[in-house]
Amino acid sequence: MKIDTKLTRLLGIEYPIIQGGMVWTSGADLVSAVSNAGGLGVLGAGSMYPEQLREAIESCKSKTKRPFGVNIPLLYPNIEEHIATVVEYKIPVVITSAGNPNLFTTRLKSHAIKVFHVVSSLKFALKAEQAQVDGIIAEGFEAGGHNGREENTTLVLLQLLHQHSFKIPVVAAGGIANGSAMLACFHLGASGVQMGSRFLMTKESTAHQNFKNHVKSLGEGDTILSLKELAPVRLIKNEFYASVLELYQKGASVEELRSLLGRGRAKKGIYEGDLVEGELEIGQISALLDNIPTVDKLMANFLKEYELALQKKSF
Amino acid sequence: MKIDTKLTRLLGIEYPIIQGGMVWTSGADLVSAVSNAGGLGVLGAGSMYPEQLREAIESCKSKTKRPFGVNIPLLYPNIEEHIATVVEYKIPVVITSAGNPNLFTTRLKSHAIKVFHVVSSLKFALKAEQAQVDGIIAEGFEAGGHNGREENTTLVLLQLLHQHSFKIPVVAAGGIANGSAMLACFHLGASGVQMGSRFLMTKESTAHQNFKNHVKSLGEGDTILSLKELAPVRLIKNEFYASVLELYQKGASVEELRSLLGRGRAKKGIYEGDLVEGELEIGQISALLDNIPTVDKLMANFLKEYELALQKKSF
Repeated sequence: MKIDTKLTRLLGIEYPIIQGGMVWTSGADLVSAVSNAGGLGVLGAGSMYPEQLREAIESCKSKTKRPFGVNIPLLYPNIEEHIATVVEYKIPVVITSAGNPNLFTTRLKSHAIKVFHVVSSLKFALKAEQAQVDGIIAEGFEAGGHNGREENTTLVLLQLLHQHSFKIPVVAAGGIANGSAMLACFHLGASGVQMGSRFLMTKESTAHQNFKNHVKSLGEGDTILSLKELAPVRLIKNEFYASVLELYQKGASVEELRSLLGRGRAKKGIYEGDLVEGELEIGQISALLDNIPTVDKLMANFLKEYELALQKKSF
Repeated sequence: MKIDTKLTRLLGIEYPIIQGGMVWTSGADLVSAVSNAGGLGVLGAGSMYPEQLREAIESCKSKTKRPFGVNIPLLYPNIEEHIATVVEYKIPVVITSAGNPNLFTTRLKSHAIKVFHVVSSLKFALKAEQAQVDGIIAEGFEAGGHNGREENTTLVLLQLLHQHSFKIPVVAAGGIANGSAMLACFHLGASGVQMGSRFLMTKESTAHQNFKNHVKSLGEGDTILSLKELAPVRLIKNEFYASVLELYQKGASVEELRSLLGRGRAKKGIYEGDLVEGELEIGQISALLDNIPTVDKLMANFLKEYELALQKKSF
């Protein structure tokens, strides 16, 4: 029971489900499990040193024969090394984000790598299309981690893109945790979904157990898009966030904010499980996430929800 | 070609489309046009004196034989008079918002009035269900005007509600302007949609022509949820908003914000067309709205988009 869409045909995968390549969570275990289950697993290179990315790719290749991708944030300091690595290993799909899609698209495509770019607005989607990317990942305000300044929600962003009728696949991202939501996104013009938070909450992700347990307890309004003066990021309202708020109330400068944030805060929270001092990046959909299944179980359940939604004819 | 859902059966309407009862825009012309076209028109009592509401109801009754509703924000100063008026005129549907659904639901229902309550979170939806409302309007972060503090987007909010499986109809609101979005919302558990901004942008709405023309020109990122310390409201980033921002940057108190806002700012902007000094309330979907059709034309087009979406089987 494959699901056949523009996205699955382009990538040669069974289900139009991409696992978001997140920092500190998306290593070889998670990525290979998603690809083995018929989706597209994606390594999160944004939190890896060049040598770690090579190791993760080799480990992933040993765990799956199916295609997987690498997510590379374009503001990454050693970007040239990461680009060289994905070319060397002939990674079939590279997802770029947080930067100009003109920078590497042509070069990657010349090595038969398919390039998807993450956008938060129609404006950036049109730029990505001009840069000749192979697909667009349209990520709304509700998504975890770094996010756009326009604050377009996924529902609004998809309608904006739908009106333009892109020829390349559009993948919906941000606020998706249920198979019926995938069908909803299809009707809004998407041919696939990317899920981050939902895959973070699996046994295979390398997020710290403290962090996963904390996410289970979250409810509505427990995340917020903050630090807009640096780069907008959705995070949990914890003690670290309280100190950000305190700075805001004092009318702090961008420099003071940057110095409070410092380095390694996301690692401290997500990977080391420091719920107090860490920057805890997760999407708004965390209010709905109350279990930590294996990837196999998650995929099976998600596909069942999708099938049920497809069959539903009365509303 | 009726569309049969839980909502249409409950309200006795042809299409599961509710026109949001907005301040300064939703008078008898708009409301009767929507009801005559098979949706549910809703008067916006929030900007009416008691006598004006009576006049609007009488005018509306003279223009349509079909059911229409009245939206009453529960923070309205002369709330008792508005409640007495809708009882006297046997208005079939009352939509309450911005307050406690326990206040008037039982009384209204005892007069055979159906009560819908607007919520921004699952938590408030459960409270409304307990108060025995007949239906829930689930309104996300992207909606125009007053909004919830949790910042749940429509996509996230609908999934949260869907998981709970409400027996009463759930109506999706916020960020909807296209027939395919209605089908998407159906798959997320809704049995109808409420549209505000889309109906504001019709010939029949009483929003000022300056305001409508300005909305046509808006793009992504041109609205923002602001004044969260008073009551969160989505508005256009105009000169009035710039002065709000200036106060924020000075670390202004709630009192200073309240005094800047003053009285009648929304009227000034929306109804009188003062784009500089007015508070210009509109939803994020305004980025998509570039025409000002008649209600009939809008409804026909929306239903055509819905039918096309229904027929689409490949994504």
